[in-house]
Amino acid sequence: MSQLSVNHLLGIKYLNEADIQLIFETADQFKEVINRPIKKVPSLRDITIANLFFENSTRTKLSFELAEKRLSADVINFSASQSSVKKGETLIDTVNNILSMKVDMVVMRHPSPGAGIFLSKHIDASIVNAGDGAHEHPTQALLDSYSIRESLGSVKGKNVVIVGDILHSRVALSNIYALQLQGANVMVCGPKTLLPKYIKDLGVKVETNLRKALNWCDVANMLRVQNERMDISYFPTTREYAQQFGVNKVLLDSLDKKITIMHPGPINRGVEITSDVADSDQSIILNQVENGVAIRMAVIYLLASKIK
Amino acid sequence: MSQLSVNHLLGIKYLNEADIQLIFETADQFKEVINRPIKKVPSLRDITIANLFFENSTRTKLSFELAEKRLSADVINFSASQSSVKKGETLIDTVNNILSMKVDMVVMRHPSPGAGIFLSKHIDASIVNAGDGAHEHPTQALLDSYSIRESLGSVKGKNVVIVGDILHSRVALSNIYALQLQGANVMVCGPKTLLPKYIKDLGVKVETNLRKALNWCDVANMLRVQNERMDISYFPTTREYAQQFGVNKVLLDSLDKKITIMHPGPINRGVEITSDVADSDQSIILNQVENGVAIRMAVIYLLASKIK
Amino acid sequence: MSQLSVNHLLGIKYLNEADIQLIFETADQFKEVINRPIKKVPSLRDITIANLFFENSTRTKLSFELAEKRLSADVINFSASQSSVKKGETLIDTVNNILSMKVDMVVMRHPSPGAGIFLSKHIDASIVNAGDGAHEHPTQALLDSYSIRESLGSVKGKNVVIVGDILHSRVALSNIYALQLQGANVMVCGPKTLLPKYIKDLGVKVETNLRKALNWCDVANMLRVQNERMDISYFPTTREYAQQFGVNKVLLDSLDKKITIMHPGPINRGVEITSDVADSDQSIILNQVENGVAIRMAVIYLLASKIK
Repeated sequence: MSQLSVNHLLGIKYLNEADIQLIFETADQFKEVINRPIKKVPSLRDITIANLFFENSTRTKLSFELAEKRLSADVINFSASQSSVKKGETLIDTVNNILSMKVDMVVMRHPSPGAGIFLSKHIDASIVNAGDGAHEHPTQALLDSYSIRESLGSVKGKNVVIVGDILHSRVALSNIYALQLQGANVMVCGPKTLLPKYIKDLGVKVETNLRKALNWCDVANMLRVQNERMDISYFPTTREYAQQFGVNKVLLDSLDKKITIMHPGPINRGVEITSDVADSDQSIILNQVENGVAIRMAVIYLLASKIK
Repeated sequence: MSQLSVNHLLGIKYLNEADIQLIFETADQFKEVINRPIKKVPSLRDITIANLFFENSTRTKLSFELAEKRLSADVINFSASQSSVKKGETLIDTVNNILSMKVDMVVMRHPSPGAGIFLSKHIDASIVNAGDGAHEHPTQALLDSYSIRESLGSVKGKNVVIVGDILHSRVALSNIYALQLQGANVMVCGPKTLLPKYIKDLGVKVETNLRKALNWCDVANMLRVQNERMDISYFPTTREYAQQFGVNKVLLDSLDKKITIMHPGPINRGVEITSDVADSDQSIILNQVENGVAIRMAVIYLLASKIK
Repeated sequence: MSQLSVNHLLGIKYLNEADIQLIFETADQFKEVINRPIKKVPSLRDITIANLFFENSTRTKLSFELAEKRLSADVINFSASQSSVKKGETLIDTVNNILSMKVDMVVMRHPSPGAGIFLSKHIDASIVNAGDGAHEHPTQALLDSYSIRESLGSVKGKNVVIVGDILHSRVALSNIYALQLQGANVMVCGPKTLLPKYIKDLGVKVETNLRKALNWCDVANMLRVQNERMDISYFPTTREYAQQFGVNKVLLDSLDKKITIMHPGPINRGVEITSDVADSDQSIILNQVENGVAIRMAVIYLLASKIK
């Protein structure tokens, strides 16, 4: 069997193109599984996985948990609010303690960029990064590319624009890496204050006019507006944002071609996209969610096969 | 095999008498199962159930979770406090996301009356209402009737009084529907300010004198006093309530006949009922809890058989 | 098969030496199991265990949960923050409700000393005390002794010093009982204000000079400093504590012999022990965590065999 080139999924930055293809082909098989009446395989009966969430999350945690259960792994959930982290313990101590209980894999969300990378140098278990601050969110980028491939046949050569707060988005960064690795053309579009200074170094096109961006692209990935940041001075108000960077049906229908709309969720209906856009046949938002479980099953399965 | 007339359990209002009998006969079988040394059946190995609790709950959630696990279903728990609901997502988006992960059934508690009914019109999964605001709590009413049937042989023709805050109680409303459907005579008893204006339209007797109510009935279902509401002006104080609507052993022993005492829990000992009443052999409170698991297994099993 | 002399694990105080030996021999077998590729046994498929945590806990709860899952028991988690306890229900009512759902065993952490003992007189299920206030934490003491036995061959005749806040520590009290039962010599060492008045009645040596204590012992069990208590007047500051009762590498290396360092976790690095001590080859801290799962599997397995 083919193998991943890595022992952890810390970021898309550490993968090569063959890794992504292997993950996608494995996900194809698991997508068949989860659409059968019996949605489980006994593959990872001998694996114990700890989900360590040092930041709130619903859909990502649920998606990982379902992926793990459908692989028949034993699952342990640990969230920071219940945790000894509050008692001043270091991250390495917390994780080493959990590993001493014979855990094989750690799925971790952490507010600090690089937390998973740091951890991978100190502990002896497979690590999956489920989001580390504004750094990477690799499984989201994988499921996004997988959904484009499913919808448009391939990722290679496609024009993809990522719209929104690029500066604070781990989804944006991981998507840029993943799309480029697969030969897509990538553009970012958003308010100038929400584009990072190093954006040109990433080799992406930059556009601040949404209509121009949409007319260029095959796919628009509409990032979620973080309402909780909207009181900060360099942010536009929600209303300003919706007017300049939100997609409504009139705008969508006025474009030269029929583009595909993506969103990592949860949607602020009426802000990033209006309801008629979210629910239109150009939207593949719920496909992304479904593919998320298949992609996470694939990643966990492939990493587990390197442990044994 | 017989089938339910409905695809969801949204409220007792939507059931017919045959549905209730089918649920009870199925629960009889599951009650045998949970009293065996091996308390599990493999029936629902291929079903994934999401428990969505947008309101705190202990016993109802625990009872559903146990019912699901004893049917061997895969269980995903989701509670509002950890959820993206806080982030402004709509209910339909939250649930659609969960369903995209290939969930077959949703057990939902929600503070808004009709939340389940609304949802059933927009999503493609079986819904069990685990309490929607002051509206319905159908599994509670089913387990209450099932416990009366178990204790007194049948529900038909029995006199049942529901005592307490009828106005805010989903337990009261669902019980009234369920008892009437099975041919019981229903009375409500409580402070005038806690009886809804439309109460006469429900075809129940109304009594504000507890002694008279108890002398009339075979069964008294003592609702829980919501302490958190006791500071509102039209509520009696806890002490006034206990004096006028609480049952103690002296009162119970002074009645013409031996009545059966029920309570949905959690009990405020010394308020709705005193400890010697709660623990007396006339109380079937813990039987209600036990029957709750069997009833929930039956409801989930019967709804699942309509999916496949 | 040998049996425990008790039906509950309420405290070490209620065990005899043969019980401890039986638990250790059973744990030896489970330790083999959890170091196999397949870390599970089907032993307790027919047992349902409720974990009732009325106080926050991470590692203890996780360790119990893993132990239960590796025995294939059905597990129900209940934590006070989600619970009807807030609604004024009594402890007995809460637990009786859970037991009515056909639960066979209760693992309970509770802030009140003696909560498990009280409960054992009123309910009909096996109880494991996972910490009751400042009273006992029996599984911690068992895993501590088991780790000494593993590391030094036996507990009998060994000199063990417990260092820190003896007054508020359930770990200290359970360890004193367990070590004495197995014939170890026990010393406590800490600030005078943190030694209970009745300490001499327990038959232990008392020492307030850390160097003297360490030179006497084979094993030092370094209790965690509860930072949250450090603002109380009779407590030393964290800095004072670290200077007088913390172990650093220079101190450790200056001793007459190579002693073994233990800590129940979570560690405040730089307070009770410095990082180089925690990570040295004299530390068996992570072995303690690993052994915790094996010990808890043994306790649950042995108590379950008394139910059937």
